[in-house]
Amino acid sequence: MYSEEIEVRTGARETVRDITGECTRFVQGADAPDGLLHVFVPHATAGVAIIETGAGSDDDLLAQLRELLPADGRWSHRHGSPGHGRDHVLPALVAPSMSVPVLGGRLALGTWQSVCLVDTNGDNPSRKVRLSLLGG
Amino acid sequence: MYSEEIEVRTGARETVRDITGECTRFVQGADAPDGLLHVFVPHATAGVAIIETGAGSDDDLLAQLRELLPADGRWSHRHGSPGHGRDHVLPALVAPSMSVPVLGGRLALGTWQSVCLVDTNGDNPSRKVRLSLLGG
Amino acid sequence: MYSEEIEVRTGARETVRDITGECTRFVQGADAPDGLLHVFVPHATAGVAIIETGAGSDDDLLAQLRELLPADGRWSHRHGSPGHGRDHVLPALVAPSMSVPVLGGRLALGTWQSVCLVDTNGDNPSRKVRLSLLGG
Repeated sequence: MYSEEIEVRTGARETVRDITGECTRFVQGADAPDGLLHVFVPHATAGVAIIETGAGSDDDLLAQLRELLPADGRWSHRHGSPGHGRDHVLPALVAPSMSVPVLGGRLALGTWQSVCLVDTNGDNPSRKVRLSLLGG
Repeated sequence: MYSEEIEVRTGARETVRDITGECTRFVQGADAPDGLLHVFVPHATAGVAIIETGAGSDDDLLAQLRELLPADGRWSHRHGSPGHGRDHVLPALVAPSMSVPVLGGRLALGTWQSVCLVDTNGDNPSRKVRLSLLGG
Repeated sequence: MYSEEIEVRTGARETVRDITGECTRFVQGADAPDGLLHVFVPHATAGVAIIETGAGSDDDLLAQLRELLPADGRWSHRHGSPGHGRDHVLPALVAPSMSVPVLGGRLALGTWQSVCLVDTNGDNPSRKVRLSLLGG
């Protein structure tokens, strides 16, 4: 298994950060024709999603996560910013683990799919992401 | 890695389509005793879930997704049918990637588990699904 | 692929059961330096999540799942305890499949991450979990 940890800037606000470019460069560097790319976030308040970016769905996702996991006083996990407990429930719904097929040395994503880091936690402006390629 | 893209008919309405039969046939054709079956949907408005089918839970899932991701005017991603923006958020909650162990040449699913394509987008009556088998 | 099915006690109430210890022991027994640990629950009413445990987020997750999937009369899947239909929708949101990188013979989890069995179904006090290691 070829594996590498990269650093991704997510900033001080909640964000959906497209990391397809980073994944593509990693797969090219791995130089394996076929296999499975595994994307893993070693953090307890972030997840990985594959969605379309650049047409409003990234903001739609963050807005709907505010509905599904409100940043209010309901959470028993209390530290950091108000409502931060929601960030710790997020990975149960948007898991920190995602796999994408690699074929002919390229990510086999659909036309409108992007690999994204979903990070509702503005207290961590930078995140680690582990990329691994399991050869076939 | 043995990999194949299949075409799945999902029709013009939102649907939970059981593709366990397709997965089983693929695994038999792959002729590998042990490994991991990876199911991937290369579309931005569908996901893969493992649930029980045929006892109401497929309809329950679609009904509850209408509650969690309402087909109303809240979405900033606007094109296609009204409320279509919800279909683009769906894959963040029901991911397009799923893995199932293969043992002795058979899917190691539990008795009541079925691999399902979850497609709330009625505008695409047919979908591609990529099946891959990583040998052990 | 090295694979093993373990039995996990979940008790008669809904629970988030930390199985990181079980995963660690399995990986040590597999004696492979690098690869991917795959955790799979062969049940239709449970899922796997990676969250922080012991600081309230396990209870927060169960509480929020009661909001997102209420144990009321809405479900068409009816058998067992009242509201049990929700347990059958759970795996669509908290999937029964999860992968974690293994590096140098150790799980590459982040500091605050634990692998957890999420089981809202109190009718099954014991659960099977299949652990598999795909070598690199």
